[in-house]
Amino acid sequence: MKSKIGDEAIALHKKLRGKIIVKGKISVLKNNKIKLIYTPGVAAVCEKIYRNPNLKYELTSKWNNVAIVTDGTRILGLGNIGPDAALPVMEGKSVLYQEFGGVSAFPICLNTTKKDEIITTIRAIEPVFGAINLEDIESPKVLEISEELEKLISIPVFHDDRHGTAVVVLAALINSFRLLKKDMSSSKIVIAGAGSAGYGIAKLLTAAGCKNLLVTDSGGVIYKGRTENMNKYKDELADITNPKKEKGMLGDVLVNGDVFIGVSGRSNLVNSIMIQKMKPNPIVFSLTNPNPEIQPDVAKKAGAKIMATGSYLYPNKVNNALVFPHLMRAILDKRIKKITTDILLVAANAIANTVSSKDLDYEHILPEMEDKKIQKNLSKALAGISTKKLKS
Amino acid sequence: MKSKIGDEAIALHKKLRGKIIVKGKISVLKNNKIKLIYTPGVAAVCEKIYRNPNLKYELTSKWNNVAIVTDGTRILGLGNIGPDAALPVMEGKSVLYQEFGGVSAFPICLNTTKKDEIITTIRAIEPVFGAINLEDIESPKVLEISEELEKLISIPVFHDDRHGTAVVVLAALINSFRLLKKDMSSSKIVIAGAGSAGYGIAKLLTAAGCKNLLVTDSGGVIYKGRTENMNKYKDELADITNPKKEKGMLGDVLVNGDVFIGVSGRSNLVNSIMIQKMKPNPIVFSLTNPNPEIQPDVAKKAGAKIMATGSYLYPNKVNNALVFPHLMRAILDKRIKKITTDILLVAANAIANTVSSKDLDYEHILPEMEDKKIQKNLSKALAGISTKKLKS
Repeated sequence: MKSKIGDEAIALHKKLRGKIIVKGKISVLKNNKIKLIYTPGVAAVCEKIYRNPNLKYELTSKWNNVAIVTDGTRILGLGNIGPDAALPVMEGKSVLYQEFGGVSAFPICLNTTKKDEIITTIRAIEPVFGAINLEDIESPKVLEISEELEKLISIPVFHDDRHGTAVVVLAALINSFRLLKKDMSSSKIVIAGAGSAGYGIAKLLTAAGCKNLLVTDSGGVIYKGRTENMNKYKDELADITNPKKEKGMLGDVLVNGDVFIGVSGRSNLVNSIMIQKMKPNPIVFSLTNPNPEIQPDVAKKAGAKIMATGSYLYPNKVNNALVFPHLMRAILDKRIKKITTDILLVAANAIANTVSSKDLDYEHILPEMEDKKIQKNLSKALAGISTKKLKS
Repeated sequence: MKSKIGDEAIALHKKLRGKIIVKGKISVLKNNKIKLIYTPGVAAVCEKIYRNPNLKYELTSKWNNVAIVTDGTRILGLGNIGPDAALPVMEGKSVLYQEFGGVSAFPICLNTTKKDEIITTIRAIEPVFGAINLEDIESPKVLEISEELEKLISIPVFHDDRHGTAVVVLAALINSFRLLKKDMSSSKIVIAGAGSAGYGIAKLLTAAGCKNLLVTDSGGVIYKGRTENMNKYKDELADITNPKKEKGMLGDVLVNGDVFIGVSGRSNLVNSIMIQKMKPNPIVFSLTNPNPEIQPDVAKKAGAKIMATGSYLYPNKVNNALVFPHLMRAILDKRIKKITTDILLVAANAIANTVSSKDLDYEHILPEMEDKKIQKNLSKALAGISTKKLKS
């Protein structure tokens, strides 16, 4: 099955020879428009922006341009495959950005993995874009880049692996708990993966009121006092998660868990026995792409009541593609300067609420991508937010 | 007249709010293509490129993507107006690139004017592009950037102000001399402007056999031995131009000239008297945009036999827009690695020959932009060129 899809994908890419194009909104030949959009007429537009730089948002495409920036170090679950091999994913994102959000997103795959050069480059290209989307860059480097950029540039830095994934996971959890009529805040939620996604999810779930969270990485669960393989972001996780200071590997802490959230980048990390040792009717979100921590049929057989993956092959796609085109549309339209926790909470609730109680079932915990209500609800929910008084 | 066009241009830009968009060649909703263009199918495409990097030219948009890179320091004749105010020009180029060449060109307006940062940024973004178009960057910095980049990156660096302008000027000259039945090689040709355009034109006309060229800048004519306000590129010009070692200002050396080529960036640099002192029936190309060195009606009244500007307001548009979309199409299709003098000579002749003797007249020395024969002729002419044995 996998390889059949892979072959189809390669054939389609060969046929398309690139999934995106850059094109004009206007033909210069029609009505002899060239003297207006090019020289000499365009000079008046340049001078107007020169005198009043804010007009760049009215007279150019900046308001709607997003740079999808990657260095190719953490592409899907494939790892560090470099900027050339990363391009098909970034083009795919660009297609989704335009089709679902009306956003012009251009891939910027970087020929460097050095933090300073990445920051220099993003600062340098800022003028053309209304927002930056950091994508598939290894952690914790990307978290540092994101933090530094927020101080250096004046457009928002959306980090899809962190922000987008956290929003779609929270939305899916809200609806799962709605369906199971259980309380989310006291449930034991185990997140496998302490990279950008794990960090973002843990922070957002904490903000949403979850009090019994645990995060594991390849060294086992993170706890206050752990010293090996830590960084400042994992230290932060140690502070806000694992209230009972549990120790051990994923298999140990998953015992009696209500929820498993896999963003580990490791396929087949989880087996049937681990699922069987969770509480009855557990929620299993196995989100690593292209191959999940545990296959859906295996997890369901082992007792998973609600099963989701990040892949378009199965029901319940918990993929940030449900978030980024819509949320970016709202970010650009509202000229939001910084992605805050409040914005993410509002977005997750808006997406969850898009599914009516009537439509909600075990295989439909989230709306379909093409559901036009997502954008409407998101935009309405964020309209009430004043960007000035947001928590960061 | 000027301000009416300016007002119209501003109104059109306000209405469009950006002249370009980035969009998919395919809808993911149709036939459920998302699993092929995005995860999980896309992973097979990434892996294929990872194993064989050359496939990036077959499976992604790289082959057809061009970065239009500027730092905003020399926009049209407006000067250093910065990257924000530069964007409308770069978007205009992008529109022309797609409409006439089928090229996806994305503007990269840089928030830095430092040579090293510009080079670092272009190196960093190389993976996404099939070619770089340097645009409206101050000279001689841009010539140094271009030279260094050619050693550092493996995609061609097309410098439109130098290469594109030189090609269109040579094409226009070839046809002007064809029309006047005069010999180009012995004619006295005076170029005002020793920046990228002047440098490129002088080099290409020399390669085309012109033996009596003079180049002036704000300090007067360049001659072997001049010491003030020189740089390595002007030294090169001193070696190949001004065989009689003339001295003086533009007005002095223009006396008895056959051709004036203005790429000075200074409007109203030339007056009637200067034209009157040229040989009878002179050729006057006053190419500075948006306002030329001398207005066409004034030059004609003073005796100019063939008059051209770079603007779309008058007949005889000697503008590199006639070159860049078509030449870039050929560069990308042939995967030309370096822009050589041979390529430029071939291109200029191909464009000149597009105008049949029947159609050639004083107000039609060049083909119209939309003439499909340009692309056909160019592609045919360049097909005979082996990129390996080209002079650089």
